[in-house]
Amino acid sequence: MPPFRRVAILGCGLIGGSFALALRRAFPEIAINGWDRDEVLARARERAAIDDGSTDLGAACREADLVYVALPVEVIVHRLPEIAAAAPAQALVTDAASTKTAVCERARLSFFPPRLFLGGHPIAGRERGGIDHADPDLFRNATYVLIGQSGEREPSGEEAEDARIPRFIDVIHEIGAQPTWLDAAAHDRLFAFLSHLPQLASIALAETVLEGAGDAAATLAGPGLADSLRLAGSPYELWEGICRTSPALDDALARLIATLERIRSGLATGALGDDFARAARLYTILRHIE
Amino acid sequence: MPPFRRVAILGCGLIGGSFALALRRAFPEIAINGWDRDEVLARARERAAIDDGSTDLGAACREADLVYVALPVEVIVHRLPEIAAAAPAQALVTDAASTKTAVCERARLSFFPPRLFLGGHPIAGRERGGIDHADPDLFRNATYVLIGQSGEREPSGEEAEDARIPRFIDVIHEIGAQPTWLDAAAHDRLFAFLSHLPQLASIALAETVLEGAGDAAATLAGPGLADSLRLAGSPYELWEGICRTSPALDDALARLIATLERIRSGLATGALGDDFARAARLYTILRHIE
Repeated sequence: MPPFRRVAILGCGLIGGSFALALRRAFPEIAINGWDRDEVLARARERAAIDDGSTDLGAACREADLVYVALPVEVIVHRLPEIAAAAPAQALVTDAASTKTAVCERARLSFFPPRLFLGGHPIAGRERGGIDHADPDLFRNATYVLIGQSGEREPSGEEAEDARIPRFIDVIHEIGAQPTWLDAAAHDRLFAFLSHLPQLASIALAETVLEGAGDAAATLAGPGLADSLRLAGSPYELWEGICRTSPALDDALARLIATLERIRSGLATGALGDDFARAARLYTILRHIE
Repeated sequence: MPPFRRVAILGCGLIGGSFALALRRAFPEIAINGWDRDEVLARARERAAIDDGSTDLGAACREADLVYVALPVEVIVHRLPEIAAAAPAQALVTDAASTKTAVCERARLSFFPPRLFLGGHPIAGRERGGIDHADPDLFRNATYVLIGQSGEREPSGEEAEDARIPRFIDVIHEIGAQPTWLDAAAHDRLFAFLSHLPQLASIALAETVLEGAGDAAATLAGPGLADSLRLAGSPYELWEGICRTSPALDDALARLIATLERIRSGLATGALGDDFARAARLYTILRHIE
């Protein structure tokens, strides 16, 4: 028996579409319903990511026992009360947004037993978004962060005994990902440094390089620069909501600026050996990811 | 007839060793002599990068008509008077350092006709240095920047009529690279932004990410972070001299810090659309390099 019988995918883009494709491959008998704009639903049907779709939230969620919310973070925060009302009371509602504090706070105000919300964040993405780039292997070997409704590190109280959570964890394993628990504040602090700061650093570096070198970059840049700036092609639509809902991002930027000021003052004296050594340590940690 | 008969390679690491291997492949009849530490010379001989080697500068340069200086930039600045004296008066002396102002200024004080120095900077490198990673294809499709002794954009006066320069340009074409002329100040300003700033930005980002996320980076970082930080594994030995001799690097760092401050102040208001658009422009320019 599959862990869920009928799944509603709210937002059939790269993440929602990939989750649907991975789910269908693991459990061909699950019925999958999509909610999105008409043209996205048509494409999701063509790709066999969904069986059926609707632009009406209530219709899309009807009889679902899993509601997978893969919308931009601010849209989730805005729509969560409506989603809580549209989803059957026995459905597990989970999301895939990149910041968790605002979503989990809103969920706390919108979901009351037996309704259950589980915050999630699959650490997966591609340079290009949208249903056309959806891939059933997107989550393979990815870490999948889970956050209880309580916002604590692991579910507690009634939530801990709720059978819907182990069933969703089964799904995570079956699509090839590795679940791990974090509380919402710790998640957002870690990802401010691991993801949001690198994104904005890449934007700032690209702007500054363009300001200083202009079109000469086309002929004179070495291959290392393109690697450093791979994130700089990411669209603002994807990041606007993340930037606005990432509580530690301002602090992360302030720390990067302070580090750059220290490096700047060490330029002439050649006192940057310790900085390079610390950087090399992270480089070593990250090597195994490639 | 090959453009040169006898070449001295001063510094048989990644760049000097790769130049020697590429030169030998293009012109098997050229005699190549190395100058380095004994163990590096032994390895360069094993790899057939050099025919012979010496730890004595005068012996290594004897009868050379091309002296290729692939040493750390500050070593070049320090040794250039000695090299000018050791090289035969009819030899073309050229270097491969990453900053050019200090080297070309020292060359102006050390080389008098008929002695000739031509500053150079092949835009090529690898994550790992040393003779073991030398590769005859290192310069293939690379831009090779040239700077006249005058420090001007192109050779002028007597230098312009010197037959040694077109012969070296032949070599550049034969090893697969594309020569381009810049004056030393313009070169150093452009590369402060295109190369030195991205290097230090990568170091600062790696340090800050490690400070904020610690070992959690090992399990929670996405693949984009490793790309962003590819430069952070570069050893300080390679960069110490570049940082100390890059005249525009302080300004480049100041501009990056100012850009980060502007981004920081736009976080909450969500006013980063223009920043992302400017960054995307550079991303597009760089895409063709990959």
